[in-house]
Amino acid sequence: MIRARLLKGNFQDSVTLMVLSRDLSALPEVVRVSVMMGTPANKDVFRETGLWVDLLAEASPNDLCIVVETDGDDETVADAVATQVRDRLTELAKGTRKARYPVVRSWRRAREANPKANVALISVAGQYAHGLAHEALESGMNVMIFSDNVGIDQERDLKTFARDHGLLVMGPDCGTAIVGGAPLAFANRVPSGPIAVVGASGTGIQELTCQIARRGMGISHALGLGGRDLSEKIGGISAETALDLVAADPATRVVAFVSKPPAAAVRATLLDRMAKLGKPVVALFLGDRPARRDFADVHLARTLDEAAALAVELAEIDALARDLPRPKGQGIRGLYTGGTLAGEAAALLAEALDLVPDGTHAEGFMLRTERHRIVDLGDDVYTRGRPHPMIDPYGRNELVHALAADADCGVLLVDVVLGFGSHVDPAGELARAVEEMRAARGDAPPITVVATLTGVADDPQDLAVQSQKLEDAGISIAGSVRAAVLLALRLLTPPGAASGTPPALLAAPAAVINIGLRSFADDLAANGVDTVHLQWEPAPEGAERLRHLAASLV
Amino acid sequence: MIRARLLKGNFQDSVTLMVLSRDLSALPEVVRVSVMMGTPANKDVFRETGLWVDLLAEASPNDLCIVVETDGDDETVADAVATQVRDRLTELAKGTRKARYPVVRSWRRAREANPKANVALISVAGQYAHGLAHEALESGMNVMIFSDNVGIDQERDLKTFARDHGLLVMGPDCGTAIVGGAPLAFANRVPSGPIAVVGASGTGIQELTCQIARRGMGISHALGLGGRDLSEKIGGISAETALDLVAADPATRVVAFVSKPPAAAVRATLLDRMAKLGKPVVALFLGDRPARRDFADVHLARTLDEAAALAVELAEIDALARDLPRPKGQGIRGLYTGGTLAGEAAALLAEALDLVPDGTHAEGFMLRTERHRIVDLGDDVYTRGRPHPMIDPYGRNELVHALAADADCGVLLVDVVLGFGSHVDPAGELARAVEEMRAARGDAPPITVVATLTGVADDPQDLAVQSQKLEDAGISIAGSVRAAVLLALRLLTPPGAASGTPPALLAAPAAVINIGLRSFADDLAANGVDTVHLQWEPAPEGAERLRHLAASLV
Repeated sequence: MIRARLLKGNFQDSVTLMVLSRDLSALPEVVRVSVMMGTPANKDVFRETGLWVDLLAEASPNDLCIVVETDGDDETVADAVATQVRDRLTELAKGTRKARYPVVRSWRRAREANPKANVALISVAGQYAHGLAHEALESGMNVMIFSDNVGIDQERDLKTFARDHGLLVMGPDCGTAIVGGAPLAFANRVPSGPIAVVGASGTGIQELTCQIARRGMGISHALGLGGRDLSEKIGGISAETALDLVAADPATRVVAFVSKPPAAAVRATLLDRMAKLGKPVVALFLGDRPARRDFADVHLARTLDEAAALAVELAEIDALARDLPRPKGQGIRGLYTGGTLAGEAAALLAEALDLVPDGTHAEGFMLRTERHRIVDLGDDVYTRGRPHPMIDPYGRNELVHALAADADCGVLLVDVVLGFGSHVDPAGELARAVEEMRAARGDAPPITVVATLTGVADDPQDLAVQSQKLEDAGISIAGSVRAAVLLALRLLTPPGAASGTPPALLAAPAAVINIGLRSFADDLAANGVDTVHLQWEPAPEGAERLRHLAASLV
Repeated sequence: MIRARLLKGNFQDSVTLMVLSRDLSALPEVVRVSVMMGTPANKDVFRETGLWVDLLAEASPNDLCIVVETDGDDETVADAVATQVRDRLTELAKGTRKARYPVVRSWRRAREANPKANVALISVAGQYAHGLAHEALESGMNVMIFSDNVGIDQERDLKTFARDHGLLVMGPDCGTAIVGGAPLAFANRVPSGPIAVVGASGTGIQELTCQIARRGMGISHALGLGGRDLSEKIGGISAETALDLVAADPATRVVAFVSKPPAAAVRATLLDRMAKLGKPVVALFLGDRPARRDFADVHLARTLDEAAALAVELAEIDALARDLPRPKGQGIRGLYTGGTLAGEAAALLAEALDLVPDGTHAEGFMLRTERHRIVDLGDDVYTRGRPHPMIDPYGRNELVHALAADADCGVLLVDVVLGFGSHVDPAGELARAVEEMRAARGDAPPITVVATLTGVADDPQDLAVQSQKLEDAGISIAGSVRAAVLLALRLLTPPGAASGTPPALLAAPAAVINIGLRSFADDLAANGVDTVHLQWEPAPEGAERLRHLAASLV
């Protein structure tokens, strides 16, 4: 038997009611209990799930509907459940009264309670989200819409309005964000740091921020876009705004982007925007299998863990680059004793700068453009009649010396290969050659030298001693050829817009007006975020219709 | 002025002479000094570098040629240089007498000195390498040819012979190997461990072994193939032998392969062999940009650091899998609360097993084959009328319970998402559901549960507490969705041929007969490797001609 009870004029958020429904369904006397507000959508759910009774027809969106299914036909069970619902809600309301943030009942009061509030967090039922978001945007606030079931035309309307007014709309269906350190909705308490995460994927953003944190790095901001932002219809409006924001933010040094593969037209615009961002960008288009990995300073990842690792690597390289002087010369020279290492450096540089590596390898050149040159000194042309440069550093040292007169050279890439068979002190030899070259260079702009060290602690040359010799000579050590190439590129084109004032939204922790799920306000306040909770209820049906009519007449 | 002196019948290895040449070229009285054996190739070099004098025509390959260029025409300078050469070589010979390994002058003596020697390390001038390598193979020894300038037909001849006799030829132009812990030629003293490195790239192998060591893992063996092994002409003969060796080696759990992109025909055979190896293989074809990354248990990398990281990850997963029981059911089920995490698991599983992910996502299925199923429980179909599963674990728990009757399920993949907004104890809820499911399953084969944890230490649920709850319930924790999928695949198809006796070559440190560069013997002996040095000299020209004649008559 199915019975219903209504609690008129008692609006509650859906999550509270769902948990309540579940708990009460566990009572021994009942088969199941469903407690929802009397919205048309919820009435449909009652019908579809076989819980419809005619009394529900009377319910308005502000009326609480309690539907109880029992095995028998004991009327009192439904009354007992209704009493329990009332008691539980009274309990919750007591909690509310203890809240350490203002709870208000109108937009006007909310604005008065915190005139500096810059983000409205909206988690009411989808059909009401558009109107509330518009009100927030009109008051000059940015908006995060947690709610789903917002029409795509409404989404475009909101995002177009926001773009025209320099505001950001995160969502609809945006589950997570961290703005100026304030965690919004579903978010992890990750340390702050140099990586901004932007994305149209809730758990994707959460997993990225956590993986970055687990690798010892932190997050500047995490901006959600909503799952449809990169569709053709929306055209990535919020993605573009979010990228503009993090580009202008001095705290952000690296950007990690995650979404499903964008619509073709949106993808081109988006990648172009990323390439011109002036900061390294890791882009993960979920399920995509890009053939090319790096172009300009955009790095395509294929999995969440790879995206996190790449972002952390780029942030580490950025930190290393900041400690080094910016070279004046724009050319990269590579003088490698290991052919594979030279080949990898050439291939990565060619991919990043869209150059063609030297396929003929004439004279040992693995890359030979007007600006950049990478040479394999183990090539026959260098070893004919003399020992391999891993055994005898003499040949490379001569080429290092010759850089004294190379005005265009900004960065020199080299390898130091330890182990049996190799020279007894390759780092010492290289360090001496570099010092002599620097002395001979005189007033010419200095060359930054970046070395990779192939070796382990137990090698006869002693890795620690060799590292120290390089460091003492002012030679930077990169952890891999890939890291060395990224560092060289970073040195030649440091991130732009790195100083100056941050955009208003990112300058400080968000100050939030929360509308909908009460627990979001609790979490915000517990994190020291300036919070106002707007205890919102849908207007009575007539008033709503009148409001729409009035709006259509404007 | 250019003068020459000959030291008749005084054979020395080329590296010694090159270093000598370089040192003597630094003398103030000379422009340059070149000291080489009188081989036809070296005579060409004298001609090409403008150091030819007619006296050199008399020199045989066993005669030491000393050519001195001076500014003036003081005859005595050349004599003084010749004296210095003689003195330096006498010094070196004294060192030889102190050697702690047998030095012999014939193959017969070498074999007698160590009948167990199983590797001949050959670094004489290229034109002599083929003959010596053949002698070694005929005595049943494996061969590493460090020398370059060996003809490709000779290489094919040697490798074909070796294959027919169950032997391995590493090289020609093979710079590095580690066989049973013995470092051959250019090699690093890396710790021993579960990863075998096989490759046709010298510094590539060295860098890989070092990067693996730096990530805390070790090397079982490193087998070099020589740069031309994967050409169409050679057809990857040594690659195939090397892969067979490491496949049969119980100490090897993961294989990392590095080479330039193989010839098309070779590539197909090679990848097929790798896919059937029964062990995870990381393949790095330098400069290649594969669109697909995983197929079967072959994982394509794009850079040296990525290859090392992948190999280490696979070895870690293998170690984790060895501690878990092998599931009987062959199906993978994924019950994810995060849509992106479900999507990534489905995409990776589909890529590895060559399946088609579910594009329609009907009923939240991201992958739906007869055997494997991955579901996004955040899909509308699961959240209509109930809270998102990240808030309320009830829905997933029901599906976990249902697995009690799922006979085909071997591995269950799940996510646990912490942070604000999420359930207060998602791990505790999951642990309880899993324990109940296991109890209900009774005698049915157990299901291995692998979870990812999205969260950080400061999250309100406390990452450490949540991890502990999973571990206490016997739920394995993977570091990423990718790791979880790899672990699931590993559990369902554990590496084959993992027990049994290793192939003879890999059963113990190589015992080496060294022919050519003396320093290689010194390094081997210093590493405790059983070493015999064969002090080899080219036969006088007449004798050589006679030997060839005799050989052609057989």
